[in-house]
Amino acid sequence: MLQTFDVTGAPEQGPPRLSVLRDVMAQEGIKGFLVPRADVHQGEYVAPADERLAWLTGFTGSAGFAAILSARAGVFVDGRYRLQARNQVDDTAFAIVPWPDTKLADWLKAELPEGGTVGFDPWLHTVGEIETLRKALTGTPIDLADCPNLIDRVWPDRPAPPAGDVTPYPEALAGRSSAEKRALVAEALRQTGDESAVLTLPDSIAWLLNIRGSDIARIPVPHAFAIIHADGSVDLFVAPEKTAGLGDGLGPDVRLHEPGAFPAALGALTGQVRLDKQSMPYAVPMLIEAGNVRYDRDPCLLPKACKTAAELDGTREAHLRDGAAMVEFLHWLNGQADALGHTDHALSEIDVVTALEGFRRSTNQLRDISFETICGAGPNGAIVHYRVTRETNRILRAGELLLVDSGGQYLDGTTDITRTIALGPPESEACACYTRVLQGMIAISRARWPVGLAGRDLDALARYELWQAGLDYDHGTGHGVGTYLSVHEGPQRLSRQSGEKLRPGMILSNEPGYYREGAFGIRIENLIAVEEAPAVPGGDAQRRMLCFETLTYVPLDRRLIAVDMLTQAQRTWIDAYHAETRRRLGDRVSANARIWLETATAPL
Amino acid sequence: MLQTFDVTGAPEQGPPRLSVLRDVMAQEGIKGFLVPRADVHQGEYVAPADERLAWLTGFTGSAGFAAILSARAGVFVDGRYRLQARNQVDDTAFAIVPWPDTKLADWLKAELPEGGTVGFDPWLHTVGEIETLRKALTGTPIDLADCPNLIDRVWPDRPAPPAGDVTPYPEALAGRSSAEKRALVAEALRQTGDESAVLTLPDSIAWLLNIRGSDIARIPVPHAFAIIHADGSVDLFVAPEKTAGLGDGLGPDVRLHEPGAFPAALGALTGQVRLDKQSMPYAVPMLIEAGNVRYDRDPCLLPKACKTAAELDGTREAHLRDGAAMVEFLHWLNGQADALGHTDHALSEIDVVTALEGFRRSTNQLRDISFETICGAGPNGAIVHYRVTRETNRILRAGELLLVDSGGQYLDGTTDITRTIALGPPESEACACYTRVLQGMIAISRARWPVGLAGRDLDALARYELWQAGLDYDHGTGHGVGTYLSVHEGPQRLSRQSGEKLRPGMILSNEPGYYREGAFGIRIENLIAVEEAPAVPGGDAQRRMLCFETLTYVPLDRRLIAVDMLTQAQRTWIDAYHAETRRRLGDRVSANARIWLETATAPL
Repeated sequence: MLQTFDVTGAPEQGPPRLSVLRDVMAQEGIKGFLVPRADVHQGEYVAPADERLAWLTGFTGSAGFAAILSARAGVFVDGRYRLQARNQVDDTAFAIVPWPDTKLADWLKAELPEGGTVGFDPWLHTVGEIETLRKALTGTPIDLADCPNLIDRVWPDRPAPPAGDVTPYPEALAGRSSAEKRALVAEALRQTGDESAVLTLPDSIAWLLNIRGSDIARIPVPHAFAIIHADGSVDLFVAPEKTAGLGDGLGPDVRLHEPGAFPAALGALTGQVRLDKQSMPYAVPMLIEAGNVRYDRDPCLLPKACKTAAELDGTREAHLRDGAAMVEFLHWLNGQADALGHTDHALSEIDVVTALEGFRRSTNQLRDISFETICGAGPNGAIVHYRVTRETNRILRAGELLLVDSGGQYLDGTTDITRTIALGPPESEACACYTRVLQGMIAISRARWPVGLAGRDLDALARYELWQAGLDYDHGTGHGVGTYLSVHEGPQRLSRQSGEKLRPGMILSNEPGYYREGAFGIRIENLIAVEEAPAVPGGDAQRRMLCFETLTYVPLDRRLIAVDMLTQAQRTWIDAYHAETRRRLGDRVSANARIWLETATAPL
Repeated sequence: MLQTFDVTGAPEQGPPRLSVLRDVMAQEGIKGFLVPRADVHQGEYVAPADERLAWLTGFTGSAGFAAILSARAGVFVDGRYRLQARNQVDDTAFAIVPWPDTKLADWLKAELPEGGTVGFDPWLHTVGEIETLRKALTGTPIDLADCPNLIDRVWPDRPAPPAGDVTPYPEALAGRSSAEKRALVAEALRQTGDESAVLTLPDSIAWLLNIRGSDIARIPVPHAFAIIHADGSVDLFVAPEKTAGLGDGLGPDVRLHEPGAFPAALGALTGQVRLDKQSMPYAVPMLIEAGNVRYDRDPCLLPKACKTAAELDGTREAHLRDGAAMVEFLHWLNGQADALGHTDHALSEIDVVTALEGFRRSTNQLRDISFETICGAGPNGAIVHYRVTRETNRILRAGELLLVDSGGQYLDGTTDITRTIALGPPESEACACYTRVLQGMIAISRARWPVGLAGRDLDALARYELWQAGLDYDHGTGHGVGTYLSVHEGPQRLSRQSGEKLRPGMILSNEPGYYREGAFGIRIENLIAVEEAPAVPGGDAQRRMLCFETLTYVPLDRRLIAVDMLTQAQRTWIDAYHAETRRRLGDRVSANARIWLETATAPL
């Protein structure tokens, strides 16, 4: 699916739809109703059938929710979406509520002082979410009660749920059969005395069964539910039209069921049932009648995060392929210097996004981009989650920076890379900031550390040089990445919020940044994988240490590097990285791009 | 009290004492009894009356405990004390148990399979400790039960508890009156609905009431108990002979009681009573009958840790005074080069410790050393908690490293400093290791970071260069330090175990190290204080940042610095640090020491 740049949403539809919703709320005898942007699988991308928030309010951002009361309605959005929400939402009908500054519970207390019942669809909210909200409302006259989805009742032409084909994922790329994975998870269940675990995260199910799907954009997963039992067998709940192509591929230990059979299957579970509070719909434990629930992490998360050798091999190959496309793109962009600022043959952010996607598609192996490309020129680069639209589309100008954060989905791996590019000779201030960001990126790339540390323990390394200059960035340093799965994957993170231990095989992004509002944005991102650190001469052989293998090889913009700010070790790292980039990609790019690559990767 | 070097302890007394203890255990009908090294105040140093573990087993180390059963007895000591324990304990009577490798609960389960009651003195174990142990014994036939202290019953000549004078601490040095501090703590109690808080940590009580004591070595605190009420008044339980000199100094809101009145006072408490589980004797909540207990941190810990401007001023002055004594010491040591390795006028570790204490005493302001000096030459330097004894005392030899970790208690502040010194021309390998340790020390010294981070978030900065070489150290990077109080103070730490946010006014040590077993030890330690970071030109003014002020000014051994390993920023830092050391201490040292100081602090 090609990236589009139109802002959909229909603010004028908000008031009449709100009015019919309030009618059914009154019929149900409830004072409020919650409309999250989430679907039952808590995914980052939702299907058209799940765009309830957009249908009701007009707001199409990827995060947010609405709370509808009889007389008031609030659309809760975080800082990055406030402007967009103001443009998309009719503010006579909805108040834009700054979130998380204003918490839902506090807003409800203020707007519903007389109390009453606030309804929610138990399939769209997690156990953790409802528990937190319920706790915050303790002692108030406001009750929370699950109810049918009232939007679905009043949305006449609601699209059908997606019915994308489910396909097998080659065992050669997965590095482990589904039977092996199921045995691994079943063993973990037995160790904690669980009879079964319920899985509602599509990438957990896709990983466990070595399948992929095509229900939503950007993430090749099927919408499905599964129950894995302590004997390693699985009940899979998925629309039969989706699995026609699978044949008997899943084997006798995976029993297929209609999605409609899921509630009854939950009701029939006995013994201890493991559920992940952070992702499990509130409806699931409500339906478990005979079994007793034990909350713990989705048992697929950790084994999925620790990639097999085959997955790492595939990912390396995907990165070289993607890197070659990036080099073609950077070479093309470099050739557009004449266009900068010219009005007759100007180049815009949308042109850049389109060209980049074209280079990736030219590999003939791109399944999809792995997320909507972030391409921000000049001040647009400083908007951290910027997505260009026809309204915001900026013409590239000489002297500005261009931030491009993009990635591809390939059968053998998922990529995610950010490069910041000088459009013509850059200002020295921009170079100083770029260099500090790069120093942080290098500090993480070079790090070795004793086994047992978490992302939190390393995060400061990426920020130290920025901090010294009184600067910082308001996002984590890195997120986990799947293999031909979600580009954002837990549990690993490089973040001061993450106590999750780093383990060999985990893939992470390494993406420090710096954003000067109204001026420019800088981010440099490579993907890296945790591996056992090789012994160092003179090192203490008894200390088991880990380090990162760099997966991404694409030139860094040498024009933005203030060489005199670098230490010798940093300079050596950059030269070695560039030499390796040249070596790995030289034979994979076109002749002209190769000439550019030689220059772009020359020693500093 | 001068440091001594004799290892006391009487292994031959162990078996007969064990036998009488077992007799009273049998009379009490218990199968086991626990003998911790702790006193009721959970202090690092205990009074002779509290040396129950040494009396029974012969073991005099500063950490450890014994578990006595009818037929078996174990002395639990950690790695640093195993050798000492083997020398001090009769191993026909006691097994030396490696702790924490072997947990007490597991040992009890193995040694007491038939079950029975294990007794403990509820005044000598914290609530947290007993809770943890009880949890680990759940489902076994072993019961834990509080009982009178059986050692005290069979120890005929047990010393009297200490009766050191309590003296007022000048408000000018504290920077806050006791009334202000009590109002501050009382306000905190009211905010959480506590009617009172029980205080059993002597440094909390000393801080709160602006008093100091002289009951134990190295830490100028009184053994006492206190209850602070939500109205700011305090009941203080302390032996009357200790407070004779105070007069009415504590004011009408501090009511004095005999220590014997403490249990009844606990019984009379009503409403919500705040107790710190980590330090509170198990007996205290047992005695609270009418009140209800709420566990939370000792309310004095955080305000005590965030020093006032006056305390910081005093600490700076104490460090310059102590730094001058250190310079005299280093100058003296430098003049002993001829003695190295000579047998006729050799210099030993004990000579060094004695000389150093002499230089500190020459300031005429030393109240005590702040802990037993660690002075390890050559391989002894690699023993992290090494304390020289007549048995281990090593002659200093040219070519070896000498690690000296020491500090002083002055009325205006507590110091703690480690320097590693080359005895004659060092080996290049030692210089490389020293430089990596120094690079970590400098990274912490120079750090700026956004407000809200904890010690855990910064710890990696101190280790990065060691990690790169496959090296590390097995202790935290820094501990909190009091002002004329304990040299080890919570809650702040620079450690991967510490989630406590760093706040302005907190004093910490900054002491990375590296230890090569059998060869040498390196540690470099300055004290630093958290402060608001000044604005940086070009920095983001909206980001509130913190940084460290260096308190310790004493030369680093230039002979150990491998200049070519340093970055320009590190080199600049060292030169500036040395210039500042020269400037601050030049006028405070003798003429000959000044000449040495000039050379020792010359630019690299």
